[in-house]
Amino acid sequence: MEKSDVIVIGGSAAGLTAALTSRRHYPEKEVLLVRREQQVLIPCGIPYIFGTVGSPEKNLIPDALLEKNGIRLLVTDATYVDRTAKRVDTPKGQLQFDRLVLATGSLPAMPPIPGFDLDGVFTIRKEIDYLRNLQQRLAGCRDVVIIGGGFIGIEFADEVRKMAGERTLSIVEALSHCLVLAYDDEFSTVMESHLRERGIHLYTSSRVDRILGDKTVKGLQLADGTKLKADAVILGIGAVANVELAKTAGLRLGPTGGIQVDRTMQTSDGNIFACGDCAEKTSFFGGRPSPLKLASIATLEARIAGANLFGLRRESPGTVGAWSTAVGDLALGTAGLTERMARDRGYQTVATTVEGPNRHPGSMPGACNTRLKLVFEAGTHVLLGGQIQGDAAIGEVVNLLSACVQQRMTVEDIAMFQAGTHPALTASPIAYALVNAAELAIQKMRGAARGA
Amino acid sequence: MEKSDVIVIGGSAAGLTAALTSRRHYPEKEVLLVRREQQVLIPCGIPYIFGTVGSPEKNLIPDALLEKNGIRLLVTDATYVDRTAKRVDTPKGQLQFDRLVLATGSLPAMPPIPGFDLDGVFTIRKEIDYLRNLQQRLAGCRDVVIIGGGFIGIEFADEVRKMAGERTLSIVEALSHCLVLAYDDEFSTVMESHLRERGIHLYTSSRVDRILGDKTVKGLQLADGTKLKADAVILGIGAVANVELAKTAGLRLGPTGGIQVDRTMQTSDGNIFACGDCAEKTSFFGGRPSPLKLASIATLEARIAGANLFGLRRESPGTVGAWSTAVGDLALGTAGLTERMARDRGYQTVATTVEGPNRHPGSMPGACNTRLKLVFEAGTHVLLGGQIQGDAAIGEVVNLLSACVQQRMTVEDIAMFQAGTHPALTASPIAYALVNAAELAIQKMRGAARGA
Repeated sequence: MEKSDVIVIGGSAAGLTAALTSRRHYPEKEVLLVRREQQVLIPCGIPYIFGTVGSPEKNLIPDALLEKNGIRLLVTDATYVDRTAKRVDTPKGQLQFDRLVLATGSLPAMPPIPGFDLDGVFTIRKEIDYLRNLQQRLAGCRDVVIIGGGFIGIEFADEVRKMAGERTLSIVEALSHCLVLAYDDEFSTVMESHLRERGIHLYTSSRVDRILGDKTVKGLQLADGTKLKADAVILGIGAVANVELAKTAGLRLGPTGGIQVDRTMQTSDGNIFACGDCAEKTSFFGGRPSPLKLASIATLEARIAGANLFGLRRESPGTVGAWSTAVGDLALGTAGLTERMARDRGYQTVATTVEGPNRHPGSMPGACNTRLKLVFEAGTHVLLGGQIQGDAAIGEVVNLLSACVQQRMTVEDIAMFQAGTHPALTASPIAYALVNAAELAIQKMRGAARGA
Repeated sequence: MEKSDVIVIGGSAAGLTAALTSRRHYPEKEVLLVRREQQVLIPCGIPYIFGTVGSPEKNLIPDALLEKNGIRLLVTDATYVDRTAKRVDTPKGQLQFDRLVLATGSLPAMPPIPGFDLDGVFTIRKEIDYLRNLQQRLAGCRDVVIIGGGFIGIEFADEVRKMAGERTLSIVEALSHCLVLAYDDEFSTVMESHLRERGIHLYTSSRVDRILGDKTVKGLQLADGTKLKADAVILGIGAVANVELAKTAGLRLGPTGGIQVDRTMQTSDGNIFACGDCAEKTSFFGGRPSPLKLASIATLEARIAGANLFGLRRESPGTVGAWSTAVGDLALGTAGLTERMARDRGYQTVATTVEGPNRHPGSMPGACNTRLKLVFEAGTHVLLGGQIQGDAAIGEVVNLLSACVQQRMTVEDIAMFQAGTHPALTASPIAYALVNAAELAIQKMRGAARGA
């Protein structure tokens, strides 16, 4: 029986990063990565297969990283984990491990909607053949409906819109707005207007009653009776942890159905770690279970798991939740809690918003309007979260916001932030949004203190 | 005699921000801003007047901010400050103050080069008429030489290059590379190649012996005997604090010639504060005098001075030095110390560099190669500085780096950073540069510890 110091099961963002990290931190240990897929898709890039990038083959994680770092690869199914024997069973034989990392990812969530099993109803699976088939199928469709107005749903809609041929595109979202789990309404509505301008139909506050059709999908009916024509329906309503292997191995599961892990990413078995979409997450804010599943979270967890395999070195402070989404030239980013989320959880908040151009003077090339909202805890003045609207650079503003949240910076720390600015790259130093939003919040807090 | 609670002298970034901040923090106080200029130029935007933006009138700080915030404006010269009488003299009358903020800025540095007073030799003054005249003069020039290869010099060169008409453009830099006070050589050389590709001639490690000509400039002679033809010479070798008013008022000056201030921006007179280019600066690293003069530093100091006028609330932790520069589609950013600066100051350093595309997959639109270098202190593992090369988004990456430096984050903090990523906006979460550079540094530190 072949033996490895470390076996990682799963080859996407979490598995690959866990393997890389264990090689970095324990260069003397042998690492074997076991995965099902011959080639691995970049998960966040999947929507772009349909428009911008063009095909699944152009959206792959290169295996060069494995080779370069001396990580062995076995493409096969892991069918069973025997924890006592420290053994993984596969169709290609049994594998012995000293430490095991489960990075088995997630599967598309299936809603309890009648008709979801009709031909022409698709989920967003991370499988090349499935997506290639979906792409071919969509090419011949006239009416495409996407269920779910989260970031996957809206990015998918806009990319399918870019495909050759004429078709109507609709998004059906059960909540009151798109992106409602990551943005306050004033940001969601900007994206909604932008999608409508691009010809995408939006049905918010709309529950799907049933998907219509005999064998093949013909449309869907909303709870209010509205019927939508559809020759393809795509479900983009989220993902559930893939825990089959963990469950049969007798590992404990967590409150949201992921593999239970502590802050070191250890499962209920001290020799087995889990990371990524398959692992239970807790929030940076209060430590409750967090529903977020993002590749960036997966890689952080993998860096923790990989570093801890032969000696605990790292602990997760919980998931901040920093991410962005883009449709055309409009990008939105979020880090930490929105105002609504913060209030729902019981925080007293002070929020401020500033708008302005991202160049100075505003006539410099590439100028666009940006909007930044900061949410502080009213008593301690600690930053709970920020949201930003702008151009491509907001992908990095989100990381600045994430740093401020992770460091639990106060409104005063942020007002004293030493920003770098440049006419061709950023807002003016007089009007740098992050700092100005903090100064406004200080004014607001002082006003509130006086009023009290 | 007219009386104001607060008088601010100077209307550029520091003066305006000090006035705004004092209104925000002390809304009941009357603020009068006294400035010489009818209209105020955006200082960092001055190079862009010549090419991208087109004229000084398109590069102004709007006075709307003053009006909106109830700040009175008096356009005149402040000629004398009587500290005992708490009085400012101007040609338009005497003004009484309770607190005074000096934000008198800087003047172009004049090198001790024979011929600097010839007709056709220009400095970069923040005056509309002067710049308009320079623009007209340059329009008729065939050979323009810029002395100084710092960010002002290179941005100026590229903008003059964009003017209508044919002309040769040369930069003469005394040090071994352009931008050497902000970047390590491997970044400077990238910018140098980029400038050469754009047709700009570079003379590095080249001292100017004399500027040639009778009444009008005809050329210049370098220390090695090389002669350069020139019908215009622009001096871009830095700026010196404008301290005339402070000096005659009897305020103490600092070691680099700026107005001496403590960490609260108080001068040697407790009722008088100073901020911006006219004020002495200390470094975030060790507290020595810092030569940096940037609008972003000026505004931070102004936020400190303005908040402290009637009760000390804020202290400067010293200047980190975060800023960026851009020529065409190449942008460079820096925050904190370079490897060379850190070693020169006596730090033991561990530095790592990572390169990669800023999109995932790399075929996404807008992808370019980025390079990030991090410099850590070897014993404490605290981040001392970072440098980044890339596209416009690096204007905000610099601020992420600045946050990490200001928070004195360690290599482990950064390896555990929770980044947000997006295919259309950033690098992949597996290869996010900041985090990967930290992981590499940890490997390096561990290797060094083993070797020891």
